[in-house]
Amino acid sequence: MTAPVPADVLSRLKSVLGEGGWSQDPERLAPKLLEWRDRWRGETPFLALPRSTEEVSAVVGICFEAGVPITTQGGNTGLVGGQIPMGEVLLSTERLRAIRDIDAFDEVVVAEAGVTLAQVHEAAASVRRRFPVGLASEGTATVGGVISTNAGGTQVLRYGMVRNLVLGLEAVLPNGEVWNGLKRLRKDNTGYDLKQLLIGAEGTLGVVTAAALKLYPVMVSRAVAMIGVESPRAAIELLSRAKEETGGAVEGFELMGRLGVEFALKNIAGTRDPLGEPHPWYVLAEFASGEAGSAEAAMERFLGEGLEAGLIRDAVVAQTEAQAKALWAIRENQSPAQKPEGATWKHDVSVPVSRVADFLDEATAAMQAFAPGCRIAAFGHVGDGNIHYDVIRPDGAPDAPHAARRDQGSRIVHDIVASMGGSISAEHGLGAMKTEEARRYKSPVEVAALEAVRAALDPKRIMNPRVLF
Amino acid sequence: MTAPVPADVLSRLKSVLGEGGWSQDPERLAPKLLEWRDRWRGETPFLALPRSTEEVSAVVGICFEAGVPITTQGGNTGLVGGQIPMGEVLLSTERLRAIRDIDAFDEVVVAEAGVTLAQVHEAAASVRRRFPVGLASEGTATVGGVISTNAGGTQVLRYGMVRNLVLGLEAVLPNGEVWNGLKRLRKDNTGYDLKQLLIGAEGTLGVVTAAALKLYPVMVSRAVAMIGVESPRAAIELLSRAKEETGGAVEGFELMGRLGVEFALKNIAGTRDPLGEPHPWYVLAEFASGEAGSAEAAMERFLGEGLEAGLIRDAVVAQTEAQAKALWAIRENQSPAQKPEGATWKHDVSVPVSRVADFLDEATAAMQAFAPGCRIAAFGHVGDGNIHYDVIRPDGAPDAPHAARRDQGSRIVHDIVASMGGSISAEHGLGAMKTEEARRYKSPVEVAALEAVRAALDPKRIMNPRVLF
Repeated sequence: MTAPVPADVLSRLKSVLGEGGWSQDPERLAPKLLEWRDRWRGETPFLALPRSTEEVSAVVGICFEAGVPITTQGGNTGLVGGQIPMGEVLLSTERLRAIRDIDAFDEVVVAEAGVTLAQVHEAAASVRRRFPVGLASEGTATVGGVISTNAGGTQVLRYGMVRNLVLGLEAVLPNGEVWNGLKRLRKDNTGYDLKQLLIGAEGTLGVVTAAALKLYPVMVSRAVAMIGVESPRAAIELLSRAKEETGGAVEGFELMGRLGVEFALKNIAGTRDPLGEPHPWYVLAEFASGEAGSAEAAMERFLGEGLEAGLIRDAVVAQTEAQAKALWAIRENQSPAQKPEGATWKHDVSVPVSRVADFLDEATAAMQAFAPGCRIAAFGHVGDGNIHYDVIRPDGAPDAPHAARRDQGSRIVHDIVASMGGSISAEHGLGAMKTEEARRYKSPVEVAALEAVRAALDPKRIMNPRVLF
Repeated sequence: MTAPVPADVLSRLKSVLGEGGWSQDPERLAPKLLEWRDRWRGETPFLALPRSTEEVSAVVGICFEAGVPITTQGGNTGLVGGQIPMGEVLLSTERLRAIRDIDAFDEVVVAEAGVTLAQVHEAAASVRRRFPVGLASEGTATVGGVISTNAGGTQVLRYGMVRNLVLGLEAVLPNGEVWNGLKRLRKDNTGYDLKQLLIGAEGTLGVVTAAALKLYPVMVSRAVAMIGVESPRAAIELLSRAKEETGGAVEGFELMGRLGVEFALKNIAGTRDPLGEPHPWYVLAEFASGEAGSAEAAMERFLGEGLEAGLIRDAVVAQTEAQAKALWAIRENQSPAQKPEGATWKHDVSVPVSRVADFLDEATAAMQAFAPGCRIAAFGHVGDGNIHYDVIRPDGAPDAPHAARRDQGSRIVHDIVASMGGSISAEHGLGAMKTEEARRYKSPVEVAALEAVRAALDPKRIMNPRVLF
């Protein structure tokens, strides 16, 4: 736990933030101190609620001078504890809510850190554009958060991670100075790309206060299908064909096991079994195109050829927007649907796409040996090689013994990932949860380089000090 | 000029590199010391020709220990002098020529730094894939060079800069240690992205020795057209329509003024005027799609609607691959075609796409006032807001007076760019030529941050010391 914050620092912070700009009220603080899956409960002496970049700068400047650490929080949807303070000053971006500009022609929106992803989507739609980052938590997740964690989501296959979708950034650096990098250029080769350093830095190199985000044209043609397949190997073979068939129009390609679908049927009201009979694995595929009818035609060809090749057991194509939403809901509910099933070891891993099936085979064999009777719910963005690999306690067993073996179990999974050249955090980041684990798998050369960068920009280590290198 | 290299350092370098692994022969060195446009002539006491990552590591380690600076060179196609040594040890990647792996399924090629871009294209084509970076210099430019300069090219509009196309890197850091970051993952959120720092670092943070590059499916449908338009404003309006019409299938959208086309007709043998009559401006547009016939159909609709809207004066669609190549050759020869016209102030600038026409108006008025009679050849990647804006001496005038005013003239152009939130180096980098100029336009906050990063990773400032911050 962090050392107490000196009283004079608190009074200086109160004075720059003014009334309504801070809180020490336990009720106001409570929701910001609890991670949504109940894995972390934090503590803070002071919640800062700056309403402008200048106020963020003042807060960080005071803390820098006094060497007082800060944890920054957006929508509190992070999955690795990076947003939960453990005694640090908590800086919330909730009042940085302006959409400063939107330009359909330049295909850019400039949004402040506290704007939610859903608000970005609405703003983009209002000018017939879209921001291709879709997260289950998009109603709450914020611009600052998705940038600081380099969020992924379901459209990475086509558009890349958030890292690829940021044209410019404004941030307050750890010394309190404002860096205005809010360019809206597609090309700018004038030295190290500071914004690329801040993206995915999980709040350790400064506070992102606003971003210029890249927009894309709205797609006029879209086809969504749920496909029953025998195995992950069949799914990956289908992915390869889908890419060839559409030449880049694959918008999403998600894999789910039957068990996860059953959890959704059981635990999420209103879920319907997507196909007549159960299948061992499911692919949710979405194609999209700017040319009318093109995605639908490609989907029809793709499914026909897949059936003929024996790679598809059965499939249904959404005929309406409501049907498409219902299919996507099964995928998006994979995580919430597990919750009632009890203690779970969650993993957010990636391997080269060609190794996904090998990974699932090896990891599942290892888990069945290590934790007999455990239930494996694997799902994720197979097109990116990114699997959310969740190991749930045996049906009817108590939670505690399973929860107690989490670290050992995860070590086995992560070792398999590492042996395949994979990543132990594909899209969630390291946060407080995985920083030490990541150190195990990185070379000393890389760790030393990352530590040097951290020390160069955050010399007093006041920004999210428990996180990263 | 850099201090002389001590004799014992030279003898240690010779001993680790072995016979054939180094040279001090003026004839062998000459082509590596001359920039291709004759703007820089360098000097070096020693050419290192390592043939493996381990040898690169040994060379850099010896130089690090002794504090001896190094300049790294790939294909020597850089345009800003960053690859030309001024007394430093010259490290050439020419013997790092292996394609270590290629995998069509994972859509990745692992190539060493000295492999040319054209060789990457060939390797990709052999497995029905492609690497979407096209440069006029691709027969000579190398993997290490395009990564270290974050190269752009004609396909950025669709695929982004090289920064977006690198899955993993192997590099020798300034202390001589090898960083093996040769992952082939689409997603990996485990701390600051070291490869993003090295990309575009112009050799100042280490020597890139190999890279895992992202491949894409081959396009089966492609349409190339040369379009005569009235003005850059018409071109930009067409671009907006093309994006909407194709929903992301615009592969290239290049603008050229009539003067540049005339230079090609005059100075490049075999060039034919692309359209029946001359037009003030030309757009070279390429659409590509994975769906047979789709790009051709979209081009037909796009041209029809553009003609009807009065935005297109005339257009021709390539009917064969040879015709497509001939149209592209006009664009690719814009720079060589200028050379016989005499002294030129070249600029590689970007502005928000919506400001391209304003920039051209303002800059041209300013140049005509500052250098009466000068000839403006503007061309470039209008879809990215990136214009190569070249100011050539008056026809028939001597070179020297024009060349002597280069810095003053460029300052005017750059000030206009900066006033529009643009970049003074969109794709060529800063090198030895523009580092000081870039400092003028960046905030002290940003410069301090970039200097801190440099000092953290290259504490003795031995890697390309004259370049960047």
